[in-house]
Amino acid sequence: MAKEPKQLDELFHDTLKDIYYAEKKILSALPKMAKAAQNADLRAAFEKHKDETEGQVARLEQVFELIEEKPQGKKCAAIEGILEEGQEIIKEYKGSPALNAGLVSAAQAVEHYEIARYGTLIAWAEQLGHDDAVKLLQETLAEEEATDEALTALGEGGVNERAVSEAA
Amino acid sequence: MAKEPKQLDELFHDTLKDIYYAEKKILSALPKMAKAAQNADLRAAFEKHKDETEGQVARLEQVFELIEEKPQGKKCAAIEGILEEGQEIIKEYKGSPALNAGLVSAAQAVEHYEIARYGTLIAWAEQLGHDDAVKLLQETLAEEEATDEALTALGEGGVNERAVSEAA
Repeated sequence: MAKEPKQLDELFHDTLKDIYYAEKKILSALPKMAKAAQNADLRAAFEKHKDETEGQVARLEQVFELIEEKPQGKKCAAIEGILEEGQEIIKEYKGSPALNAGLVSAAQAVEHYEIARYGTLIAWAEQLGHDDAVKLLQETLAEEEATDEALTALGEGGVNERAVSEAA
Repeated sequence: MAKEPKQLDELFHDTLKDIYYAEKKILSALPKMAKAAQNADLRAAFEKHKDETEGQVARLEQVFELIEEKPQGKKCAAIEGILEEGQEIIKEYKGSPALNAGLVSAAQAVEHYEIARYGTLIAWAEQLGHDDAVKLLQETLAEEEATDEALTALGEGGVNERAVSEAA
């Protein structure tokens, strides 16, 4: 008998593994970004988001439990690439007034990846009738969107401006 | 004399090269996604976005010209990873009713990467006083946001639902 093609519940599970892997990678990248930040507000934002990310990992573990699966990551090439670009900025802009602006940019690329993935997972959880998972995933999505907005405000509120004026 | 650290104008230029490379990669991925789509609306959305992407590449070339630089790409690990995940979905969900849902998800990850990058480029162009570049980049950002919304509507409007009902 031919193997049955994978269905939406498997796509949901695969994507859950993808974002679980990604969250754990982000968890180990955030302290490096906080350490590189040359501005107290930006450093505080990264530290706050690290705490949030720990909660998000825990929520994902609850979602795995709700679908009766073991929490497990699956290599996510997207987050590897996104974080690699962040590392490059830290290296290339070390000592530059533009470093903070680069860190904000790198962090927003991470947030947008997560916003895309959680948006997708919520839509699928709704279709699959996993109502408790929808609630958990929505809590995380709201945190990611708030983090993205806070980063925009930090960028517009001075981090980028100082990058220009200090260079002048 | 020690080498001067790179400044915001160089970060802007580096990021412009990153998204120029990314847009060209996306341009070659979109026909594959359109071909894989098993739904006329989704296929049409990918084809429409391919035409838009050609215009976005042309706008980026105008921005390079405005800052008196030659249009040039720089390997973008993020988009490579994001597109690699899309290719995996096409391969793993071939013949599955969940394929369209997976394609929507892959495309939204691409859109969100672009939304993050263009948002950043606009903020920096404003700081650097590149007013004409701001306008061009805003036009593209508006297109990316509209594409993301259209994909959400396609997902909610049936692509995911069919992925469940056809599997039932």
